This record gives sequence, structure tokens and C-alpha cells, in this order.
Amino acid sequence: MSSPSSPPAPSVPPLSATPRTVLGRSRERARTDRADLYAVLDAGLICHLGVVARGVPMVVPTGYGRIGDTLYLHGSTGATSLRAGGDGGEVCVTVTHLDGIVLARSAFHHSVNYRSAMVYGTPRLVTDPDEHLAGLRAITEQLAPGQWDAVRPPTRKELAATAVLALSLAEASVKIRQGPPVDDEEDYGLPIWAGVLPLRTTWGEPEPDPALTADLPVPGHIASRNITIG
Amino acid sequence: MSSPSSPPAPSVPPLSATPRTVLGRSRERARTDRADLYAVLDAGLICHLGVVARGVPMVVPTGYGRIGDTLYLHGSTGATSLRAGGDGGEVCVTVTHLDGIVLARSAFHHSVNYRSAMVYGTPRLVTDPDEHLAGLRAITEQLAPGQWDAVRPPTRKELAATAVLALSLAEASVKIRQGPPVDDEEDYGLPIWAGVLPLRTTWGEPEPDPALTADLPVPGHIASRNITIG
Repeated sequence: MSSPSSPPAPSVPPLSATPRTVLGRSRERARTDRADLYAVLDAGLICHLGVVARGVPMVVPTGYGRIGDTLYLHGSTGATSLRAGGDGGEVCVTVTHLDGIVLARSAFHHSVNYRSAMVYGTPRLVTDPDEHLAGLRAITEQLAPGQWDAVRPPTRKELAATAVLALSLAEASVKIRQGPPVDDEEDYGLPIWAGVLPLRTTWGEPEPDPALTADLPVPGHIASRNITIG
Repeated sequence: MSSPSSPPAPSVPPLSATPRTVLGRSRERARTDRADLYAVLDAGLICHLGVVARGVPMVVPTGYGRIGDTLYLHGSTGATSLRAGGDGGEVCVTVTHLDGIVLARSAFHHSVNYRSAMVYGTPRLVTDPDEHLAGLRAITEQLAPGQWDAVRPPTRKELAATAVLALSLAEASVKIRQGPPVDDEEDYGLPIWAGVLPLRTTWGEPEPDPALTADLPVPGHIASRNITIG
């Protein structure tokens, strides 16, 4: 998978530099361009949402979408994680792409190639109907681009059952490791194979719902997605 | 990807049923067999570790390994996430496999097929040298089975620089969704394609370190791994 480190547009502000987004460890892996943040988020399908519920951390895999500098999350209005996140509590949203296993000459220097983004903040419960719908659209389109306009839109009842949270991307960090292992100088002469075992995530063949009532073809926006992602 | 719901051995105790591991939402997706927990954890490569650091949640992607009913995590002795986790604070470790995008006839019923495990508990900082080494071995072998015995083992100095945390699997939940979309009854007649777009994670060709000093072949335990995972 390629590194998303394309040069940022001049108008894109740099990432924040608050104490928790300035990396303590492995500073060389940190990226400070907002374009890197967008690239990691936009290439993802799900995030891991961290909230504090009943005093302890809870990490929930969930969908998300991005519009500009806002990340949207959704869930049932009754879900614990959403309630904790929408209740004025801070959250951490992490999106991770695992790109390969880094096989070093020593056990100690084994690692992984990855791209990850962490976003910190206090989400806002979306109450504006237009933003609510736009957030849901962004979340659906993140998973399946082109689907929103191809399917039945949400009813008023469905909208009422779905909470949408908006999280600013103001405070975020990006960490990327790519490339071969970095071994201790004296280990390079050892007769031990070293390198990277890449991971690839690809789409399989679309599997039609057995309950399809007509012989409908797979829509182009789904069929044409059959490429390596990430 | 296949569902890991093989029947548990009679001797395997069921998963816990504490308030936070009994699912509030989507109960039909919950699994209560310990064998399902093992299957989800053993098929993973990285987890998302949730800690409370400076009062707010922090979700960090990291490696892990399992020995019996203990999960091992490691990190630099200076890392914030490890310090928070080893400091008597509770953590949540989540392992997620994304198996496909569930494309429904309505936007509302879009979903994903996945297998996920959440483990809650207060980790113990491993101080016993044998367990410390066994934990590191489990973490390395989780990423790259067969590597531990093929590479240079850790030195005393490397071991001292690496903290290992042990987390009991006593309190955990497993959630699995597989299969086609579930639409509203009245939507099945709509002329809208529905189904699943599967995701596959595969290993690429091993990429030798350009710094390899001899023409070493790719070891069998790495080369033979070139199959679909998960």
C-alpha cells in the first residue's frame, strides 16, 4: 500500500500540537500535515471509538464519515458508547491501516508497517436536520461510495432512532511506519532473513442477497470497486 | 471469511455475564462461548487498546498475544498507554475483523459483517522473567508464527526496556455479524440490488530487506503464509 504523504495544499493548516498529539515515542513516525490525516481517515472503513463509560474505557468498532474538518459517528440513540460520547465526555477515535509485518533479525526489532490517525475531542450531538442527514450520508458513503443515492432514503422514524455525533478534527495526530526493518548495526551480518510481509485488503466478488426478488445486476459503483483498497 | 463458531470443548467455561459484557444492543449478535473469543483473538494481528490517560480515553493500535486465558501486551517502558494500563487502571482491548460491507435496500439497514472481541480488566505488570519472555514470545508469534525461534533472542537490556502487561480474559464479550442484509419487509420488493461486498485480507509477496548481506531464501514459515487470513 502506498504512503498517503502527498504534499498538502498550501491552505491546509498543520495538525495540532497539544501535549497529547505531540508523540512521546517514535517521533520520526509522526506526520504533521493535515493532508496526511485526511488520507488516513478517507482510506478507512471503520474506526475504533474510545469512550469512558461507568468510569472505565470502552473501545467500540464503528462506522464514520468525514466532511471537511468534522468526523461523523452514528449509532442507536440507546447505545452506551454513543450516550457516553454525546454526554459531554471526551472521546478518542482511532483509524488504523495495517500494511505489513516487519520481520527483523532480532525479536526486539519486529514491528508492523501501518498508518494510523487518532482524533481527540468532545463530540457534539447533531440536532440540525440537514447536518444530521449529511452526517449519515457521509457515514454510509465512507463504507459504500455511491450507495446513498441508490437506496431508499431514511424515513423520519429511522432518523429519529439514529443519533449522529460530530467530532472536530482540530486535535489529531497521525503516525505512519513504512519500509524495511531497522536492526542493530551488529545484527546485519547475521544469516537471518529479514524483510516485510505485506498485507493486502481487497474486495471479494459481490454476493447478491438470496432474497433478491428480481434478477438485478450488481450496480456499477459496487462492481467497479473490485480493487485493492487502503 | 468463515464464522469461527465451532462448538466449544465441554471443558471451556462460558464467557462472563457482567453488566458490561451482556450486550444491550443487537443481542442476537452476541456469542457466549469461550471458543468464539479464542477464535476472534487468535485470528487477529493487532488490537486497539483503550486506556484512560490524564482523565480522557486514548485508543492505541498495538500488538498482542494470547496464552490460555491471558492476553499479553507490550510496549516501551516509557509509553503513555502502557503506563496508564500498568498503573492499576482498567483497560479495554478490542480486536475487530471486518469481513464485508452489508448493502441493504435502505440506507438505514446498511451494516458491516464483522467479528469482534472486547476484553475488560485491570492489567498486571509482568515481573516474573519467565512469564515476561513467554509474553513477548506470544506477541511476536501472533504477528509472525515461527519467527521467535528463527531470530536473535532479546538481550537483557532489550528485555529491561520492554514492559509486558498481562490481562485476564475473565471478562470479555464477542460480537459477530455475518450474512446478507436484513431489510424491512416492505422494502424487499424494491428494484434495488442488495447483498454483501466481502473484504479479504491476504499476504503479499515477502519483500526482502534491501540490506540483506547474503542471498538468503525466504524462510518456509514466512513463504508458506501466503494465504487468505482472518
